[in-house]
Amino acid sequence: MIWLNGQILPPGAARIDPRDRGFTLGDGVFETMAARDGHPIRLGDHLERLGRAAKLLDIPLPVEASELPAAIAAVLAANDLTTGMAALRLTLSRGVGSRGLLMPLDPKPTLVIIAAAHPPVPDHLDAAIVAVRRNEGSPLSRIKSLNYLDNVLAQQEAQARGADEGLMLNNAGHLAGFARGNLFLLKGRHLLTPPLVDGVLDGIVRHVFLVRAGEIGLDPGEASLQRADLETADAVFITNSLLGCVAIRRLDGHDLAQAPETVAGLLSLLKS
Amino acid sequence: MIWLNGQILPPGAARIDPRDRGFTLGDGVFETMAARDGHPIRLGDHLERLGRAAKLLDIPLPVEASELPAAIAAVLAANDLTTGMAALRLTLSRGVGSRGLLMPLDPKPTLVIIAAAHPPVPDHLDAAIVAVRRNEGSPLSRIKSLNYLDNVLAQQEAQARGADEGLMLNNAGHLAGFARGNLFLLKGRHLLTPPLVDGVLDGIVRHVFLVRAGEIGLDPGEASLQRADLETADAVFITNSLLGCVAIRRLDGHDLAQAPETVAGLLSLLKS
Repeated sequence: MIWLNGQILPPGAARIDPRDRGFTLGDGVFETMAARDGHPIRLGDHLERLGRAAKLLDIPLPVEASELPAAIAAVLAANDLTTGMAALRLTLSRGVGSRGLLMPLDPKPTLVIIAAAHPPVPDHLDAAIVAVRRNEGSPLSRIKSLNYLDNVLAQQEAQARGADEGLMLNNAGHLAGFARGNLFLLKGRHLLTPPLVDGVLDGIVRHVFLVRAGEIGLDPGEASLQRADLETADAVFITNSLLGCVAIRRLDGHDLAQAPETVAGLLSLLKS
Repeated sequence: MIWLNGQILPPGAARIDPRDRGFTLGDGVFETMAARDGHPIRLGDHLERLGRAAKLLDIPLPVEASELPAAIAAVLAANDLTTGMAALRLTLSRGVGSRGLLMPLDPKPTLVIIAAAHPPVPDHLDAAIVAVRRNEGSPLSRIKSLNYLDNVLAQQEAQARGADEGLMLNNAGHLAGFARGNLFLLKGRHLLTPPLVDGVLDGIVRHVFLVRAGEIGLDPGEASLQRADLETADAVFITNSLLGCVAIRRLDGHDLAQAPETVAGLLSLLKS
């Protein structure tokens, strides 16, 4: 069952216009988040980020933001996802527009909410550095826009090389992040992640770790990182709202150092 | 009237699934082309490019490619566009997929054809160099993928600054092209355009000019270009399949040199 602009509909009945600018131009934004036993995790943070991205692109919400928690709860209930782990996705597009690139003056946005069962998170993942680069020169690299095809290509290339996660460099050759999550690495007590200016998604788990990793004795910070930093790191992690924090076990077929106590400590920050 | 996977439908009846990966991820490609008196211009070139881009992304066509000319003719007829100039757009997406980035193993692609009357082409356009950069490190910068939001931002910024066309640099600071067309500049007899590796759309008019500009006494070629090259050029042009070739009159509010005979000569190549 799909929530579409205020209605809950079965998949065959939830339909959108093929002239929707989300479809024709990728003109929109989305959020993905986890829900546990029917309760979306860090919902306020996700709705705030959706609002910021929509404001950047000047896309109004078709409903009041205050109605979204009830809409999300209704989608979870309609899909029998009120127990266990679920994955939620909110997609907001600018809606149907006339031909051309310029934004319509009177947009009729499309908002879609879908939910699915979320499989268990693995203990570790393997990564590969992929060819496609992240565009540090676009504001879209810092938000979850509907322009996600570079990430699709990155993930597909990683899979073709026997890995789970595609790790992307930016055009300057700095590490930017994974196709589906932020990059962190551990060097002694330093917990480092690339700065947003390197073409990095402003991730919600990323923000939690930057603000709170001091609570478990780490020193978090932003730093432009190179490939060589991965080999000398004491551990490498991927973070996102569905995975939480997962250790990268191998990079391009080579074993990386592991720090299971640090993973456990970081995961504890996400549970409190 | 809209052509959708083999059927011609009125706008309210032509509907797609909100889980279509074209909508959720921008996972697809498109073509735009002009039609004169019901005849699409350089149709073979456009269908060939659509096929190349679909192959790069591994998206099958949902109908035989040989059926497309008749489908396009039917859309033009159904919209009373068999006289005068029309603009056509073909949009091909990977169709509905399950959650996540990886491509479905058994895609059910969506193909949409729309047509609209095409307004007269102006004699000249004004341009502005915009902040958003083109991603030279992605193969998507060389095809017409459904990830077109950077171009939307570029065009919107140009309009906000009183210009018609957004001119984009890549992350290395080289000129890459306009939000909706390729860049050419004239220096003496040299007709120069940036190489594809600079993050440039493999434009069909661009290709015609590179192959045939010798016929009107010009020496065409690819070269990485800088902002300063615009100021010293004898003329600057935007090219695409709907505009043909149009002179840029002003850049960031400064007048550029004009070469009307060269524009006339280049346009003659597109008519023969």
